[in-house]
Amino acid sequence: MLRSLQILPVPGLPEVRPGDDLAGLVIDACTASTGLEVNDVLVVSQKVVSKAEDQLVRVDPDDPQAHKPLVVAESVRIVRRRGDLIISETKHGFVCASAGIDRSNVEPDIAALLPEDSDRSARRLRDAIKGRVGVEVAIIVADTFGRPWRRGLTDIAIGCAGIKPILDLRGTDDAVGRELQVTEVCLVDELAGAAELVRGKATGIAVAVIRGGDPGWFGPGSVAEDIVRDPSEDLFR
Amino acid sequence: MLRSLQILPVPGLPEVRPGDDLAGLVIDACTASTGLEVNDVLVVSQKVVSKAEDQLVRVDPDDPQAHKPLVVAESVRIVRRRGDLIISETKHGFVCASAGIDRSNVEPDIAALLPEDSDRSARRLRDAIKGRVGVEVAIIVADTFGRPWRRGLTDIAIGCAGIKPILDLRGTDDAVGRELQVTEVCLVDELAGAAELVRGKATGIAVAVIRGGDPGWFGPGSVAEDIVRDPSEDLFR
Repeated sequence: MLRSLQILPVPGLPEVRPGDDLAGLVIDACTASTGLEVNDVLVVSQKVVSKAEDQLVRVDPDDPQAHKPLVVAESVRIVRRRGDLIISETKHGFVCASAGIDRSNVEPDIAALLPEDSDRSARRLRDAIKGRVGVEVAIIVADTFGRPWRRGLTDIAIGCAGIKPILDLRGTDDAVGRELQVTEVCLVDELAGAAELVRGKATGIAVAVIRGGDPGWFGPGSVAEDIVRDPSEDLFR
Repeated sequence: MLRSLQILPVPGLPEVRPGDDLAGLVIDACTASTGLEVNDVLVVSQKVVSKAEDQLVRVDPDDPQAHKPLVVAESVRIVRRRGDLIISETKHGFVCASAGIDRSNVEPDIAALLPEDSDRSARRLRDAIKGRVGVEVAIIVADTFGRPWRRGLTDIAIGCAGIKPILDLRGTDDAVGRELQVTEVCLVDELAGAAELVRGKATGIAVAVIRGGDPGWFGPGSVAEDIVRDPSEDLFR
């Protein structure tokens, strides 16, 4: 019943370039460090996925606002705007600053867009790992988002495969036998944040392995379908 | 440089009652399981802190809305309202549903309020542990909050001691030598969420230990001062 988790950084991933075989690079890096075990959760930074999928756009390196037209193009609705800050709903359904576009950990003349479909990216990575080394892992594609009301940013899941995005505890009892009121835990966001703790922003560690997860965590699911809240049920846009 | 983290559940905490010596109970439970090491991060559920501090109010057990007057009393501003759902700014500065009041893991005729000052609660726990067993640990008091735009809830920090709430990376370079744009990581929220992964909602595990943290994480800080965003700089209330 009681489980402990390990959160392991995966060093050794080389600089990823458009068209690279990301699954192969991840397998090699894991094989050389953490290994790969059934029900490992591999948390992979959005940035390396975007690079491998060539979601890169050339921008004026001398203009810090050069990516702003891309922000508008990637958005379906501006939610808030203050000065240079644009918080929008992206075409993927995320609400975040700058449509998830950023220019850190890329060359000065490059802006990296989010993957077109991060759930699909996660599924492909999972399937490739399963196909090549025969190990069923879960994949989370993680990015760093701010949030209202609280300072600081945390890593959250923008795509996943092989893991339930939400643990639905409705109908289970709490420790004193009453039905739980807090019922839906966003498992993949907590895992993405946990992985950030060993990845860091400045280290270039793009992948972390979380080992020891509950067998009940694993199964089909999609961030876009299970986590992104429909605007009609949302009170904040 | 590279560190891995362990997230360890701490079983064996008895049912906590008003006036109980929470530090003593936590020390005993840790001693019997994980031990206590310098720079362990102990994540403690809000619920046991509220119980020890007698932040409990008697309510009609047959009325699921009986705590609503308490929600209003604990709030300084209603942010959104839909049906029975009230999202408000609490007197502590948090924006959350039901002013953080809940009725799970307590007796049917009890509603548990948030601690009056969760940073103070964390400091007292940290000081007591240091005083009694001579080990400097960090404390996070964690609660489960929803968020706009995304389904599911995650655990976040409502109080802390001995740990920097935000890791400020401004001025550090990314892996390709450019100054980081994403600069302020909310360390304590990521740690609180990570701890939830082994605590769970239905298990009655109120404490988790996170071991292996970077020495740079530790130092003074307060959730109320460092994380709660001033309404004037907030775009969503």
